[in-house]
Amino acid sequence: MIEPRRIRLGMVGGGQNSFIGEVHRIAARMDDCYELAAGCLSATPEKAHASARELGIPRSYDDFARMAQEEAAWNDGIEAVAIVTPNHLHHPIARAFLDAGIHVICDKPLTATLAQAEDLEQAVAASGKRFMVTYNYSGYPMARHARELAADGALGNIRVVQVEYPQDWLATDLEASGHKQASWRTDPAQAGAGGSLGDIGTHAFHLAEWVSGCRVESLLADLDSFVADRQLDDNAHVLLRYGNGVRGQLWASQIATGHANGLRLRVYGDRAGLEWFQEQPEQLRFARLGEAPQILSRAAAGGAERDIRLPGGHPEGFLEAFANLYRDYAALLRGDSDDYGLLPTVAEGARGVRFVETAVASSAAGGQWREL
Amino acid sequence: MIEPRRIRLGMVGGGQNSFIGEVHRIAARMDDCYELAAGCLSATPEKAHASARELGIPRSYDDFARMAQEEAAWNDGIEAVAIVTPNHLHHPIARAFLDAGIHVICDKPLTATLAQAEDLEQAVAASGKRFMVTYNYSGYPMARHARELAADGALGNIRVVQVEYPQDWLATDLEASGHKQASWRTDPAQAGAGGSLGDIGTHAFHLAEWVSGCRVESLLADLDSFVADRQLDDNAHVLLRYGNGVRGQLWASQIATGHANGLRLRVYGDRAGLEWFQEQPEQLRFARLGEAPQILSRAAAGGAERDIRLPGGHPEGFLEAFANLYRDYAALLRGDSDDYGLLPTVAEGARGVRFVETAVASSAAGGQWREL
Amino acid sequence: MIEPRRIRLGMVGGGQNSFIGEVHRIAARMDDCYELAAGCLSATPEKAHASARELGIPRSYDDFARMAQEEAAWNDGIEAVAIVTPNHLHHPIARAFLDAGIHVICDKPLTATLAQAEDLEQAVAASGKRFMVTYNYSGYPMARHARELAADGALGNIRVVQVEYPQDWLATDLEASGHKQASWRTDPAQAGAGGSLGDIGTHAFHLAEWVSGCRVESLLADLDSFVADRQLDDNAHVLLRYGNGVRGQLWASQIATGHANGLRLRVYGDRAGLEWFQEQPEQLRFARLGEAPQILSRAAAGGAERDIRLPGGHPEGFLEAFANLYRDYAALLRGDSDDYGLLPTVAEGARGVRFVETAVASSAAGGQWREL
Amino acid sequence: MIEPRRIRLGMVGGGQNSFIGEVHRIAARMDDCYELAAGCLSATPEKAHASARELGIPRSYDDFARMAQEEAAWNDGIEAVAIVTPNHLHHPIARAFLDAGIHVICDKPLTATLAQAEDLEQAVAASGKRFMVTYNYSGYPMARHARELAADGALGNIRVVQVEYPQDWLATDLEASGHKQASWRTDPAQAGAGGSLGDIGTHAFHLAEWVSGCRVESLLADLDSFVADRQLDDNAHVLLRYGNGVRGQLWASQIATGHANGLRLRVYGDRAGLEWFQEQPEQLRFARLGEAPQILSRAAAGGAERDIRLPGGHPEGFLEAFANLYRDYAALLRGDSDDYGLLPTVAEGARGVRFVETAVASSAAGGQWREL
Repeated sequence: MIEPRRIRLGMVGGGQNSFIGEVHRIAARMDDCYELAAGCLSATPEKAHASARELGIPRSYDDFARMAQEEAAWNDGIEAVAIVTPNHLHHPIARAFLDAGIHVICDKPLTATLAQAEDLEQAVAASGKRFMVTYNYSGYPMARHARELAADGALGNIRVVQVEYPQDWLATDLEASGHKQASWRTDPAQAGAGGSLGDIGTHAFHLAEWVSGCRVESLLADLDSFVADRQLDDNAHVLLRYGNGVRGQLWASQIATGHANGLRLRVYGDRAGLEWFQEQPEQLRFARLGEAPQILSRAAAGGAERDIRLPGGHPEGFLEAFANLYRDYAALLRGDSDDYGLLPTVAEGARGVRFVETAVASSAAGGQWREL
Repeated sequence: MIEPRRIRLGMVGGGQNSFIGEVHRIAARMDDCYELAAGCLSATPEKAHASARELGIPRSYDDFARMAQEEAAWNDGIEAVAIVTPNHLHHPIARAFLDAGIHVICDKPLTATLAQAEDLEQAVAASGKRFMVTYNYSGYPMARHARELAADGALGNIRVVQVEYPQDWLATDLEASGHKQASWRTDPAQAGAGGSLGDIGTHAFHLAEWVSGCRVESLLADLDSFVADRQLDDNAHVLLRYGNGVRGQLWASQIATGHANGLRLRVYGDRAGLEWFQEQPEQLRFARLGEAPQILSRAAAGGAERDIRLPGGHPEGFLEAFANLYRDYAALLRGDSDDYGLLPTVAEGARGVRFVETAVASSAAGGQWREL
Repeated sequence: MIEPRRIRLGMVGGGQNSFIGEVHRIAARMDDCYELAAGCLSATPEKAHASARELGIPRSYDDFARMAQEEAAWNDGIEAVAIVTPNHLHHPIARAFLDAGIHVICDKPLTATLAQAEDLEQAVAASGKRFMVTYNYSGYPMARHARELAADGALGNIRVVQVEYPQDWLATDLEASGHKQASWRTDPAQAGAGGSLGDIGTHAFHLAEWVSGCRVESLLADLDSFVADRQLDDNAHVLLRYGNGVRGQLWASQIATGHANGLRLRVYGDRAGLEWFQEQPEQLRFARLGEAPQILSRAAAGGAERDIRLPGGHPEGFLEAFANLYRDYAALLRGDSDDYGLLPTVAEGARGVRFVETAVASSAAGGQWREL
Repeated sequence: MIEPRRIRLGMVGGGQNSFIGEVHRIAARMDDCYELAAGCLSATPEKAHASARELGIPRSYDDFARMAQEEAAWNDGIEAVAIVTPNHLHHPIARAFLDAGIHVICDKPLTATLAQAEDLEQAVAASGKRFMVTYNYSGYPMARHARELAADGALGNIRVVQVEYPQDWLATDLEASGHKQASWRTDPAQAGAGGSLGDIGTHAFHLAEWVSGCRVESLLADLDSFVADRQLDDNAHVLLRYGNGVRGQLWASQIATGHANGLRLRVYGDRAGLEWFQEQPEQLRFARLGEAPQILSRAAAGGAERDIRLPGGHPEGFLEAFANLYRDYAALLRGDSDDYGLLPTVAEGARGVRFVETAVASSAAGGQWREL
């Protein structure tokens, strides 16, 4: 049952022309668990305030540190903050709010450097506050169902995990045109060490481990920048060795012509295999060895009932999956549930940054194996 | 740019265990254009008030007529009302709010009888108020794009229109178990003359005319009730003759085993054909005669840019399409746009009821042609 | 085990520029059960002989009646003949060979008129010879598997049968260009009463009855010729009432822009539904009520083992399905099997012609119900 | 125009229970370009002769060397031989026939060792005879069309090539049951150094280079044997560096639960990308950057006309693709064409064996880069 009391939410970043800021706002609104009460939507004061006005956000700040302090000091101040800035700002902002005693929702990758990520892990532990990293693909009902199948042993002993995330929006030198999303994602000062690796590779890496329940122990990466003068990778080929002899490949690319947002995960065990594709997220292909493959969905047997806003056949998509994270996080904050359950933690966020830095090091060494 | 001022919305119907009520609420909330300010969520007072409490709706009524009067009398009363009750109540409720000077959003089919529908058409005209019927499939970006292709002549002269809407949730005698959704939809006193015809056939009929721009002139129907003792059709086969010699078939079924919500429209002209399938709504197959078919999407050339909350490849679904109607209607109420544009009108709603009654009469006569 | 002895086969029709003649020849050759020993490949003597020379056929005739007599008179004459001419010639040729005591393989539709078809039925019975009509889609392994599922009760009581066969190759006035295939198919003197109805509607009609095991009792047709001056239908919409209250639609079209050869059959029972699509013939979608749909194939459990030349995943197609008819017919002629089993009989062929004539009469009457 | 004169063909291997022998025979028969005149179908004399009798092959040998000599000595002896034995026998057999002046068709991988492969390359050059390796996937019309698109520059500068070939038939210890196909393929003495790598990895490797026109310069492999006691790899993960900075991954697996024969190739350039999947071989997805993807087929514009036995929409499959190699090879032998054109040569065969040995060495070294 949806509780009427809405959690007071703040947001840092996400002003005009932001993509992910609006996604977080819709996700927070979807199930009516939050009210957006305060924001520091831009580092540029006029833009911050104009954005807040447009969005009807009551309290607008132009300094996130002051926002953290003032909101924390006030009885009806925000209870949680969503951080939707470029990567390099995640750490200072998250620290500011955690230190002020405010729960944090942070976009991925967690931080621009591993040192920052490890600092955040400690800060979360010290604060006693909740911290969610929006690896949003884990919010899809059929991705969650895939995880259950793996955990329940329906796949048997897992042998191979194949994950890929091809896009094509950076197939040309888009950053040269001043395109905001492209510019910061290809700038090491804002994005960190990974290009496609940080932006989408971390999603793929997280989903692979999170669904399969397997843990990568070492990797070998071959990174490339196909667009001239690009400073960060736009294509990443990675070999992965998981525990228990499980093997896999990961491919992340932002120059894969013809793909919009093609995250695809396949997990193969000795009893069954499964496949999930983000662009048709309501279907989960599940094939037991020697049997006809089944197309699992929310509509059919095996659907993940807990995630249903709509009956099967009425497609839910990216925003609903994102909203599932927000809804579950609200339940956590309200104390309806006591542990993170399916929610991605700061530790998972830090692991993603470690993945990026390890892959970059492997590739820089000419493509050598590195422990993770 | 989203305006901060939210339209004050009321709702009649949609209490506990309602499916479509929650859909309307999420759709209204999605783009932050409405606030749900009052409700008469059930005819049972306790249930109405409990539902309102749970949802955090400020003002709760147990009588829709009183709600219409009181809200209209108040300066800050609701500006529009969403009607999400069983069909037979649409007419009295809509009249009450129109007569009180409040805009109306009404679920489909418009009414339980054609006489009621025609009365509503007149009432809307007399009231000067806005009236939208939630033929929600017309809110999908790629359905809208299909309509544009047809209107722009990309199909050439249209020849054949095939539409179908198979489901299987009424393949058994679900209503005997007391299932609320099944019970009223199979009860002529609440649903009107059409079973599958009214519940989903009206969607199919609307979409076929709305996308193709062709207008049905006569029809011949063969209706059946496959489940024993069911009083209304659960399967409808209809032949359609449109103007200008265009021909088509319509199939609506709620006993089509293996289908969840399989609305599919295909339109064939002498230059090109197109196909759109609701369960994979982000794709539109478009084939020019003699050329390779294209898979149009929001991501690729030809995408319907105006409908984008998310970049292509980040799937939008049923709720986002529904929200498109709400958002466009908000623009209409605010005066941002002056005509209904893509929004389904009361006339389209009445036409759907006429389609139902004509098909029922055709079938009752043994399957004879009837003018529409 | 394949027998080394090859059946001596003759062919009438199928000379240069024929489409279906070459299909029959490859089908006969595929499993090495036949040798093509004689032919009357064209009514034009030079063309007949040139074609035979090119194909390396030992004995060439320019008169089918003489061929029947001479081959029958000779000890090592042909044992069976394949008739691959335009429709209006099927009857005289088949009679000639049956009367001479030679088995017949005849393309569909069986004849140009129902009277001819009925005469052939009697002639077959009188002759004691074998007669196969090449409703070749019944040769696909997964269509055969669908028939088994229906026969075995896996679908439960069948309720609805939907079949369609859209193509677009006659979307323009192709016959005006002298295109051979188009010309005779649109000429009533050669094709008979049906255009799309005879050419592809008979396939759809046969497959629907053959897979479902249901039998059409009455129908109502709405036929059209969308291309100017075309004398025969190029689009056929038909309502079907089968026995036991089963209902269905059939759509055949040769002006459905964007379709190559889109034969699709769907059968819905109260326990399960299935779907088979000729353009992806190795898959059979099978959905039990309330369960996840399965994708049956030769590779997976439930595959039709008897039809395997190749392991699943190694696609077989149109020619292999056609060859399955030829192979099974060879077994029948050799006496390896004693009844027609899955093979389409002259009675099924005659039924197809009756379907065409009944639909034409129904449509000519303005779209009225007619018993079949 | 098909020539009536059939090439006299011999076969070594392919007796009872062979899979690939029958495939070659059907492929040879499909277009009537060959007659199977002699065979040494098994190393076991009784089996060889029984198989020949069953198949109606005129001359049966139980010693391939004698067969080569006798056939070569005879005026009407075979002109070409098809070698369809386990890998380790390819070399001696091919040498015997080449040395006797008989053309050779040899299954892949070319040989069990690179030394043998190199010897064959020289023997072919010295003999002046024709030699085709049946990398049969290159016979598919849409794979050929993909190659044309790459060669014609439709993809622009190629950047990434992804190829995979998952199967699951060796997911269990099938060889322990005495299964013939499994036994020799998992036995280093018969298969050579590669398991999945040799059996299917060579197909994937060939197709990737052959379609893209790019040439691998170095690779790094991580091979595994997931089934206990299996001596050869059953899963191969390989990173590939092609010339001109092109990068790619290759995955071959015979333990990928749920896959029958899932060869899939994707090539990405800076202007367009393409995808071809062997299990639906009639479609080729082609996406120009920023445009809607097209589904190319034989039916639509861009179809590969030269390969058509059937109009588009009438599916051709594995056997037809295989037959395309045989047909083109017949044209080569007859002198209708003067060079190999699309046909895979002995050099391509040798390159496949080099790929296997290099990958095995890379993996044995713990996963290190090796030049190819």
